[in-house]
Amino acid sequence: MRAAFQGVHGAYSELAARKILGNGISAIPCETFDMVFAKVGVGSARRGVIPIENSLAGSIHQNYDLFLSHDLHIVGETHLRVEHLLMCHPRSSFRNLKAVRSHPQALAQCSKFFHTHRAIRALPYFDTAGAAKSIADEMRLDIGAIAGGYAARLYGLKILRTNLENSANNFTRFLVISRSPWKATRGVRTKTSIVFRPSSNRPGILFHILGVFALREIDLLKIESRPDPHSPFDYLFYIDLAGGPQEPHVAHAFEHLKEVVSYLRILGTYPAGTTRFSRGK
Amino acid sequence: MRAAFQGVHGAYSELAARKILGNGISAIPCETFDMVFAKVGVGSARRGVIPIENSLAGSIHQNYDLFLSHDLHIVGETHLRVEHLLMCHPRSSFRNLKAVRSHPQALAQCSKFFHTHRAIRALPYFDTAGAAKSIADEMRLDIGAIAGGYAARLYGLKILRTNLENSANNFTRFLVISRSPWKATRGVRTKTSIVFRPSSNRPGILFHILGVFALREIDLLKIESRPDPHSPFDYLFYIDLAGGPQEPHVAHAFEHLKEVVSYLRILGTYPAGTTRFSRGK
Repeated sequence: MRAAFQGVHGAYSELAARKILGNGISAIPCETFDMVFAKVGVGSARRGVIPIENSLAGSIHQNYDLFLSHDLHIVGETHLRVEHLLMCHPRSSFRNLKAVRSHPQALAQCSKFFHTHRAIRALPYFDTAGAAKSIADEMRLDIGAIAGGYAARLYGLKILRTNLENSANNFTRFLVISRSPWKATRGVRTKTSIVFRPSSNRPGILFHILGVFALREIDLLKIESRPDPHSPFDYLFYIDLAGGPQEPHVAHAFEHLKEVVSYLRILGTYPAGTTRFSRGK
Repeated sequence: MRAAFQGVHGAYSELAARKILGNGISAIPCETFDMVFAKVGVGSARRGVIPIENSLAGSIHQNYDLFLSHDLHIVGETHLRVEHLLMCHPRSSFRNLKAVRSHPQALAQCSKFFHTHRAIRALPYFDTAGAAKSIADEMRLDIGAIAGGYAARLYGLKILRTNLENSANNFTRFLVISRSPWKATRGVRTKTSIVFRPSSNRPGILFHILGVFALREIDLLKIESRPDPHSPFDYLFYIDLAGGPQEPHVAHAFEHLKEVVSYLRILGTYPAGTTRFSRGK
């Protein structure tokens, strides 16, 4: 199965794709998230895997926006703990390192390392896996990289330090996207992601809308408001809820919801991922 | 007045600080957001200005986390439209450019420019203003930078192109933080930011909690749930609402709220910023 992801081989997104779709996939690197959606949309990849929220950085709104401009479905999710490793060329070692390449966000997440090793400069790079690849390609012995363990293995680099990040509470949630919706299977705990625009912006409208779910004892797992990119004075709401329209009470809730919103899109129903986070190795 | 911000001089955060606190401030650059909070906490800066959400990238959760570990108050907010400009050394020109430096996110937001100018390489840098500064400091004639107009003026660079970004819908909301709370003034439209943990996680609890506000016709301006960083199976909710505890109905709502949450922190009441976004010039 061909699965598209953003980044170069070794990226956390590719690891997430292999974790949820299996190691047998053919992972297709894409330059942008838009290209991931486009490849799945035209069928040149059967699945796409995109990050949607990070525990430190928050939700990635631009990826939510891509759902609004593509007719695709969420069919799965997975969580990865982001673990940054320090790595170098196999013929080098820690004492050779004068600088370390990585994405600025990863460098910032490892700031304590650079504070205690003042002689090692932090060098910004496009992405973590790309930084690892560059060390291997250029055979640099004086420069290291900060990336995941998967990138280290893929590019044959030597791991010098593990858990380089300041905070262990760094995980990313990924969604799997597809042209056709997931087919509900009995006995599988599911989750549904929706986006809607309330039919008015009077105070209390959100309370009224959430009543649709509360009256049916449907559990809300995530809620987020954001200004509508196409209409700055209106708000869109993103909600993840337990269950899916294969269950009558959820189907009824969605019918009821249509009475109080001016726009509703069901982004997908899919098996709920475990909340125990896998390590990004 | 000393005001701390993250980044180097010329950063969008410094521009936001000057916009809301006036051009007379002494703007203090800090390496990290944590240092901004720390400087305000110990009183070596009277105000701090931090980005809290971006229209494309979403809320910056790590800055919300810093509120939980520092006893500071939100006393103001402002919005800036992020406008990326292409700039170069005053003695150079567009046809000399072989590469352009900027933060990877800014480079990605200007990807269309690089697609139509294949001969110009995108070079990752720590931040946009730092990229502008580096061109001036190193007197590079063959490398440009993508940053805001404020950075171009500050470092005496020549502006080659404006509005280089793919999407015009790119704005950032900044908060002003202080050791003492803002003193409510009559006739000023206010906003209050709060964070709370529900007292249980039964379905419908959020509906129940929002009833506290709906019953008093208090308008909710933003709502966001996120896993509690210190307790991964619990959720924290961040809400912005219209008004503040200087109004009896809001004060009553907060008293009522305490009955249904196990944790509540009022992050601050402050004058509501305009929703007409200033350009990042």
